[in-house]
Amino acid sequence: MKNDVNRQVRLKARPDGIPQAEHFELVEAPLPTLAEGEVLVRNSFLSVEPAMRGWVSAVANYSEPVAIGAVMRSLAAGTVIESRHPDWRPGDRVTGLFGWQEVAAVKPAAIQRKIEDDDLPLSTALGVLGLNGLTAYFGLLDAGQPKKGETVVVSTAAGAVGSCVGQIARIEGCRTVGIAGGPTKAALCREAFGFDAAVDYKAPGFEVALAASCPGGIDVYFDNTSGAISDAVLRHLNVGARVVVCGTASIASWDPIPLGPRVERHLLVKRARMQGILVFDYADRYPQGLAKLAGWVREGRIRYREDILVGIEQAPDAIAGLYRGDNLGKRLIRID
Amino acid sequence: MKNDVNRQVRLKARPDGIPQAEHFELVEAPLPTLAEGEVLVRNSFLSVEPAMRGWVSAVANYSEPVAIGAVMRSLAAGTVIESRHPDWRPGDRVTGLFGWQEVAAVKPAAIQRKIEDDDLPLSTALGVLGLNGLTAYFGLLDAGQPKKGETVVVSTAAGAVGSCVGQIARIEGCRTVGIAGGPTKAALCREAFGFDAAVDYKAPGFEVALAASCPGGIDVYFDNTSGAISDAVLRHLNVGARVVVCGTASIASWDPIPLGPRVERHLLVKRARMQGILVFDYADRYPQGLAKLAGWVREGRIRYREDILVGIEQAPDAIAGLYRGDNLGKRLIRID
Repeated sequence: MKNDVNRQVRLKARPDGIPQAEHFELVEAPLPTLAEGEVLVRNSFLSVEPAMRGWVSAVANYSEPVAIGAVMRSLAAGTVIESRHPDWRPGDRVTGLFGWQEVAAVKPAAIQRKIEDDDLPLSTALGVLGLNGLTAYFGLLDAGQPKKGETVVVSTAAGAVGSCVGQIARIEGCRTVGIAGGPTKAALCREAFGFDAAVDYKAPGFEVALAASCPGGIDVYFDNTSGAISDAVLRHLNVGARVVVCGTASIASWDPIPLGPRVERHLLVKRARMQGILVFDYADRYPQGLAKLAGWVREGRIRYREDILVGIEQAPDAIAGLYRGDNLGKRLIRID
Repeated sequence: MKNDVNRQVRLKARPDGIPQAEHFELVEAPLPTLAEGEVLVRNSFLSVEPAMRGWVSAVANYSEPVAIGAVMRSLAAGTVIESRHPDWRPGDRVTGLFGWQEVAAVKPAAIQRKIEDDDLPLSTALGVLGLNGLTAYFGLLDAGQPKKGETVVVSTAAGAVGSCVGQIARIEGCRTVGIAGGPTKAALCREAFGFDAAVDYKAPGFEVALAASCPGGIDVYFDNTSGAISDAVLRHLNVGARVVVCGTASIASWDPIPLGPRVERHLLVKRARMQGILVFDYADRYPQGLAKLAGWVREGRIRYREDILVGIEQAPDAIAGLYRGDNLGKRLIRID
């Protein structure tokens, strides 16, 4: 960070589908001045996540689209360097919606939480102890309701959410099957994240391998992809199965809505359920979820991977890279 | 009924899609002889229902396909005329899986229940006080979980299940919107079944009319159709909506699975749920459901329509007629 400028990545043009490097621009802005009641945060890590595609989309979503010319909305983790608010003081480690920029002047509402777990790396606040871990925790346990002995299938299983889902399902006594793209990620599922089986959806014979990995059918499907992967999974649901719809990574654009095989017959014959989840709905239970997750991380029962890019100039292409599958683990940009 | 023969409708050929008259044949069989432990039932009413399409389909379903040459599986209501089982005696009014035939020799397992409500017509045991009413009751209340003040949309709203769903939803304090085919059925929804609004899906401007009928969005959708009707409804779901998948009347064949707009994005953005239901899963709670339904029928809070064909020779074309929308109300065949 230079002393007198705040480097920011702003949205330059609205993408049709997955945002690419050309939709952003890196600019040097003056350092912000702090108003009464605000806090100045110096970011150490910027988050990169699939949901950002929705944040920059003009199509209705659960949050307002990022405006053209605005700093890209992003979670970040950093340190308070100046405070004009009594609840916050310099040195506090914080995470919140600070945007893709080096320094952010924010109101306390933008701060998600103060990070108290000083024994764990700051970056975990954006992954396994952030929205990724919380999404896995509440999505799996609340909507998926896995029971001991059941088979839980997870798509994007090597990713930040999927890897956590698989490990929580194992803690709950389930048999876990991960779906990931390519042999490296499939191996990571088995070796790093303890999935009982992992299937490479890019390999020929994916559907046969999936069926072979789930000889007793599928009780819970934690869906991060939609598309052909989900279509294959739905054919193996057991009676009473639960499908947790958490993300749709394999769909390049929802405008217009793409066609796929209708799901009604599967749901009817199997008396199964498909349910969309959004982590923000569980905000009042975050402390409980974080305490559980932090405990499992400390015990080594939940492992995580990070994919850390260095330098804010990496940000513009970072979302597109996620959708290309470039990363192994939670993608972050280190900027301090 | 002639004295010495048992007229039966048997499955002659397996249909690809909706069963037509030509897939059945009417035959005269000898009267059955009664084995020890069996009961002889003389049928008064045979049931005709959309689910029969699935029962004769070769595609995997929740029950074994009816064999070629076998009497068509059907619920019926009638009277015990001879008994070689201590629990049943001549004169008992019963309903159960007695098939499309005049007389059935059955084991007690085929009898669904003894009909005790002698003040209500026998035919109601196949409709509002049978699987139709029970499907509406458990499907809406258990899976749909309507809350006072919410908007409940029902497809095939003039039908045996749909009309009951709408009336139960009103009893629960909901605003009800029925979808039906043609102005006669739409009027029936409003006038006979008390829907707050009814929309004719066959009329031009269906989607505009649907939106206008649901100014506050849709909280519960009780889906009997799938297809284009459901696609239109899903665009208006509210956050936290529940979609109860009860039937797929608008889909002519599920082999191969037809394409439709993918639902994942709706479910995700609205944190909505789609759930298939099958009434048999609630068998242990039928007595509770029937007591409630019978009470509402006696109080005039639930009204029902019947569409009674006369003569067993009407049976072969009766399922196709349902899918053509010929009937107004629960379709039955009176054969006594």
